[in-house]
Amino acid sequence: MASDTPRTDEPDPNAVVDRYEQQLDDLLAEVDEPTPRADDSITLELAGLELSRRDLMKAGGTVGLATGLAGCSTWVGGGGSRQPTSSSNDGQTPAHTVPPGELDEYYGFWSGGHSGEIRVVGIPSMRELMRIPVFNTEGARGYGHDDTTSELLAEGGGYSWGDNHHPALSETGGDYDGEYLFVNDKANGRIARVDLTYFETDAILDVPNVQAVHGFCVQSPDTEYLFGNGEFRTPLPNDGRALDSPDEYASLFTAVDPESMSVEWQVRVDGNLDIVDTDKDGRWAIASAYNSEEATDVQGMTHDDRDFVKAFDVPRIQQAVDAGNYEEINGVPVVDGRRDSPLNQSDTPIVRYIPTPKSPHCVEVGPNGDYAFVAGKLSPTVTMLDIAALDTSSDPDDVVAGRPKVGLGPLHTTFDGNGHAYTSLFIDSQVAKWDIQAAVEADTNSTEPILEKYDVHYNPGHIQALEAMTTDPAGEWLVSLNKLSKDRFLDVGPIHPDNDQLFHIGQGEKSMELVADHPAYPEPHDCVFAHRDKLSPAKTWDPSDYKGDKPFVTPADSGVERTGERSVHVRASAMRSEYGIPDFQVKEGDEVTLTLTNIEEVPDIIHGAAIPAHDINLAVAPQDTRQATFTADEPGVYWVYCTYFCSALHLEMRSRMLVEPRE
Amino acid sequence: MASDTPRTDEPDPNAVVDRYEQQLDDLLAEVDEPTPRADDSITLELAGLELSRRDLMKAGGTVGLATGLAGCSTWVGGGGSRQPTSSSNDGQTPAHTVPPGELDEYYGFWSGGHSGEIRVVGIPSMRELMRIPVFNTEGARGYGHDDTTSELLAEGGGYSWGDNHHPALSETGGDYDGEYLFVNDKANGRIARVDLTYFETDAILDVPNVQAVHGFCVQSPDTEYLFGNGEFRTPLPNDGRALDSPDEYASLFTAVDPESMSVEWQVRVDGNLDIVDTDKDGRWAIASAYNSEEATDVQGMTHDDRDFVKAFDVPRIQQAVDAGNYEEINGVPVVDGRRDSPLNQSDTPIVRYIPTPKSPHCVEVGPNGDYAFVAGKLSPTVTMLDIAALDTSSDPDDVVAGRPKVGLGPLHTTFDGNGHAYTSLFIDSQVAKWDIQAAVEADTNSTEPILEKYDVHYNPGHIQALEAMTTDPAGEWLVSLNKLSKDRFLDVGPIHPDNDQLFHIGQGEKSMELVADHPAYPEPHDCVFAHRDKLSPAKTWDPSDYKGDKPFVTPADSGVERTGERSVHVRASAMRSEYGIPDFQVKEGDEVTLTLTNIEEVPDIIHGAAIPAHDINLAVAPQDTRQATFTADEPGVYWVYCTYFCSALHLEMRSRMLVEPRE
Repeated sequence: MASDTPRTDEPDPNAVVDRYEQQLDDLLAEVDEPTPRADDSITLELAGLELSRRDLMKAGGTVGLATGLAGCSTWVGGGGSRQPTSSSNDGQTPAHTVPPGELDEYYGFWSGGHSGEIRVVGIPSMRELMRIPVFNTEGARGYGHDDTTSELLAEGGGYSWGDNHHPALSETGGDYDGEYLFVNDKANGRIARVDLTYFETDAILDVPNVQAVHGFCVQSPDTEYLFGNGEFRTPLPNDGRALDSPDEYASLFTAVDPESMSVEWQVRVDGNLDIVDTDKDGRWAIASAYNSEEATDVQGMTHDDRDFVKAFDVPRIQQAVDAGNYEEINGVPVVDGRRDSPLNQSDTPIVRYIPTPKSPHCVEVGPNGDYAFVAGKLSPTVTMLDIAALDTSSDPDDVVAGRPKVGLGPLHTTFDGNGHAYTSLFIDSQVAKWDIQAAVEADTNSTEPILEKYDVHYNPGHIQALEAMTTDPAGEWLVSLNKLSKDRFLDVGPIHPDNDQLFHIGQGEKSMELVADHPAYPEPHDCVFAHRDKLSPAKTWDPSDYKGDKPFVTPADSGVERTGERSVHVRASAMRSEYGIPDFQVKEGDEVTLTLTNIEEVPDIIHGAAIPAHDINLAVAPQDTRQATFTADEPGVYWVYCTYFCSALHLEMRSRMLVEPRE
Repeated sequence: MASDTPRTDEPDPNAVVDRYEQQLDDLLAEVDEPTPRADDSITLELAGLELSRRDLMKAGGTVGLATGLAGCSTWVGGGGSRQPTSSSNDGQTPAHTVPPGELDEYYGFWSGGHSGEIRVVGIPSMRELMRIPVFNTEGARGYGHDDTTSELLAEGGGYSWGDNHHPALSETGGDYDGEYLFVNDKANGRIARVDLTYFETDAILDVPNVQAVHGFCVQSPDTEYLFGNGEFRTPLPNDGRALDSPDEYASLFTAVDPESMSVEWQVRVDGNLDIVDTDKDGRWAIASAYNSEEATDVQGMTHDDRDFVKAFDVPRIQQAVDAGNYEEINGVPVVDGRRDSPLNQSDTPIVRYIPTPKSPHCVEVGPNGDYAFVAGKLSPTVTMLDIAALDTSSDPDDVVAGRPKVGLGPLHTTFDGNGHAYTSLFIDSQVAKWDIQAAVEADTNSTEPILEKYDVHYNPGHIQALEAMTTDPAGEWLVSLNKLSKDRFLDVGPIHPDNDQLFHIGQGEKSMELVADHPAYPEPHDCVFAHRDKLSPAKTWDPSDYKGDKPFVTPADSGVERTGERSVHVRASAMRSEYGIPDFQVKEGDEVTLTLTNIEEVPDIIHGAAIPAHDINLAVAPQDTRQATFTADEPGVYWVYCTYFCSALHLEMRSRMLVEPRE
């Protein structure tokens, strides 16, 4: 249908970017300055220490140029960038395809962004092996359709979607134990747990007192806590008493018990919170942060040249909670971790504030636990924090071990276990590979830490090398999760896929090799890898693992039981190629509970049950039982059919619900 | 949690398969018979003309053996089967991987089964390029979250999921015109249209009078009708007057106008309906069918050795409608196409019933339009119907042009345009390649049509070669959509992916080459391919294409308007890196309409808008406008944030909703 509002009568939308253009002109004027500016005026470095004005002008497109921060496919990176090669095997790069009948070596778990799901991807093939619905309802697995998963989503706040960002695998002794995967929902401030025996979400926590749980990690080396950053500053409590008074807003850091999936305590801080990681000993949870200005718009949030990394001293916070040094808000002990809190005015602060340039984005703790790597986002640097010094020196300068200049828009850093760090450069659309030790020694020895830069396509966010978050990274493969794909795939309409690019990373200094582009449904945020030997998924269900009170229905148990004037319970087994009950009769208006057990013992023989006009959809794996409750509100005949193609007689696998009119 | 019902106290579930075991023993006893039985006793061929008893016994697993129809990974096919080779390029098979920066040559559109979505897959890389939510709500694209798509789903019956089976591309002059993709929902009897300019669902029709629209196709050579098979037999009307009286049930064939997406007419038939395809001239719609017994359980439905293909004479049905020869039921003209209908008791029947062995599954019309290929499912044959004879001879025997024996469990046939047919064999877990002309001549010349059999993994349903449904198939690649994957991928819990296997198909007689296994999220049903030159997707929105009454909101238009005592309209533009309105205040209990326009002109720069605690999720492509209406039911401060990573200042792209308490 035609719009009633002709575009030509509108003010020119581009006119509003005038002030950005002016800002960019100011920034570009600074590029010709021969001497890089000092750290306290990093703003201007944003325009491109490694970019000439000519390179910038190639970007084209008024809006793209005006903001100068994304979407410029013609931007090419600075020195050292290499063009992608073909995926052919040159004798050094192992094949990334997996021949028919062979298995991938690693599991990759992708957060699905605002799709609300987790995606299981095989590495190195990059094939999506499975989706695990988490914050979304989903038909193929019947998630959010049966009673148990519907209740799970309702307990988690009853929202219809989520925005999951940071998947994290449970650890024992510093390595993945294959038990659980956890992930946060930024949209509605939740944390979910996925049972890796069944590859199914089994708990969702709606975190009180915060908006937007963004940064999220598990405690190393043993997952006794989950840590989540409440990113947005809101009134505390947020009940309408304070509205447009940002001085009264607060961000909270949250610790969660992974077994009970309940909040243990929260810490109130100054400024916003962003990403978080823990050290390898479980002592410190280190969070990046922006908006120390505590502003509410983009200009205010990016005004200052410094923000603060916040290092949470977990044992000391626990001591404060044990000592009763907290305020209880909505049932949660909230400890005051602001800079001027009495708990921070001592030699043993519960939260250390480390000044860092400018709106830093990621924190990743390196594999040997020495350093936390903080990417500058609006500074072209990665700040390396000496984790041991957090305890031994009260001077923040002593905590900074190095600050290599890596390029424009550094967001995330990953590791190969071979002394190298790889930092994604959002604005440059590159990955910088650099030498960790050289970066530490750069101030004294003038060593050049940057080894290699490689173009990616385009605008990378997270990057992850194999098992980079463990104490023993596996190296070999690295994935750059690029936010834009632009021209890299066939056009599929205005909403493009992201582009997850697979690199082989060798042992040498310049050894990155782009081997494959992989389109990703928007918008994967991060991923984590585990060797296949570290997981032990079940092939069929064990009924003793059922959640909730569900029977195991055999063919002999199958039948209809009237449980009340207006309620019936239908129990049925399912096997190739029939249900335990060929038909059942209920009365108009009855509440019907349908319990279905798949009695197969052969893996991969799934049975489903759909009932037209009643929105019923159960997916039942071998030895599993699922249950749905609904109202039979219209008289008539309604077929029950199997949704999983289970045998050559699959079409004939049916039952009938006869709904008798009520007088 | 432990189940309250210990398994050991239950009756042995396997005990119920005793009668199947007895049946199987009876069948196996027949295998040794030297002479194949006549067509009227095809039941026994089911046990395996090409299988020895030893092969059958290798299947193992009581349930698997008992039904003998699926899930037996150790079954090996008959003569001519070849083991898969590696995906290495032997000089004849072109590479199926697509190097970074290069594009796939073909679009593949996969129906997503009970996921309710369409998947866009690049061929030959088999990479999933995009998902198009159709019958499901989905967060990444905000489908079912904004007002327009929520209303679309509500008009389509308000169901939360669908079971889409048969994607079909609109045709002009016998080739794909790139305008629309259509797909049916078996679960709730619907048909949807996807606009291929925007790769977005734009219409959903809830088909009256039927349950389970299963078979579905578009009319060739010009898509003036969509045809859908109502698979299940139900009372007509289904209002509770008839319940357990199957004699009064009916299946209906439905014709839909693809522009208005409304039902034109329906035809009542005997028996169930299954798959449908049209000839290349638009005259006949030919539907397979099962359950001519009109039974309600699997034993009854598979009792007889013959069923009937139903060929609908579209112009004659239209004439009957025009002449008023119909009964109007729920607003739809329903024509009586049962065998004993007066409309069929003439030389010009509206529906021809062609006897076919046994519970035939697919109908596919070959590329030159001569034959319709009907796979036997429970007969090891494909019946070839001479389409011209449908009009020239009243003797059904004259219509049968050939009936090659292809193997066990034939379900679907596809074509390479080179004189070959490829039939999926569900029970054999093979694809049979055969010579079409040799099959026609087999009776007279004793030619052997079967050229090659190739193992697939496992239990194939649909198979499709490139553009096989057009008059000019492209050959080269073929995909077998296998229902079980079993051991072909890393374990991902009890619900396995399907396995879409990619074959290169050469020109010769034995030229199939398995090149890749691809896991598929359950449960893709079918796919269709189109060369990339046949589609012209938009890179950004054209506001004149907006559905519904939506404004284009510029920064100057951005603001809050109180539209009633308890309603406000918030209009905002979105661009990197800010909304047109930095904050807005409403009152507790207000109904808030949020209209958001993405004013970017650069492709791939998407902006979103999420509001925590309000379940709001808009995804807005460049030049698009989306709108959500909700209630601000709790006082407090709620941030609005951008869900698509749009620039280095993406995190800071925010607005605030201040909800003032109402006195």
